[in-house]
Amino acid sequence: TLLMSCSLSIWAQSNENFVRLVEIEVDPNQISAYKQLLHESINTSVSVEEGVLQYHVVTDKKDAFRFTLLEIYKDEAAYLAHIKTAHFLKYKQKSAEMVKTLKLIDVNLEAQVLKND
Amino acid sequence: TLLMSCSLSIWAQSNENFVRLVEIEVDPNQISAYKQLLHESINTSVSVEEGVLQYHVVTDKKDAFRFTLLEIYKDEAAYLAHIKTAHFLKYKQKSAEMVKTLKLIDVNLEAQVLKND
Repeated sequence: TLLMSCSLSIWAQSNENFVRLVEIEVDPNQISAYKQLLHESINTSVSVEEGVLQYHVVTDKKDAFRFTLLEIYKDEAAYLAHIKTAHFLKYKQKSAEMVKTLKLIDVNLEAQVLKND
Repeated sequence: TLLMSCSLSIWAQSNENFVRLVEIEVDPNQISAYKQLLHESINTSVSVEEGVLQYHVVTDKKDAFRFTLLEIYKDEAAYLAHIKTAHFLKYKQKSAEMVKTLKLIDVNLEAQVLKND
């Protein structure tokens, strides 16, 4: 169950955030290891990097090995700093043999509306 | 700029939430009207419906008319109630001539990590 402890309602007409959709296809034989690695990576990044704001991760119900990530960084500089961190480089190296395909889609954040507590 | 007033960190191993990715291609001639309609619709839904939890809306930087929505409902019953509301039916009717293509992808929410305040 999703736990909400959050109050946020935004209509971002324009902003400086650096926002990505990432589509990842994972080797079915390594799905557990990949989830653990991803979990560790996104938690560390949001915890220790000031400019890493949000990760949302979903998997396709018809294909449990197909991930989509919505990633929100403060700005492009924050993203460029992120991909040089030791924890990201560890993720990148370890995931290299788990990830079959990777597609990066640069997007603009148009809106976020989240339930009040 | 994204305003954060939120504290939330989740690793949803499994949950009952009903979660969708929606890919929408909008008629370029009606983009402003569509954004206004979508804005109104998602704000109303989260405000007045107990089971509508989150909407995230992005547009492709290479194609400003291509939207992706991440929609999170409390459960499937909440979604089924949502699509019978007057405000959703108004959105559906008004958007019918603005939306060129619509793709619904049922997904599982694997994780959400949001920056603490």
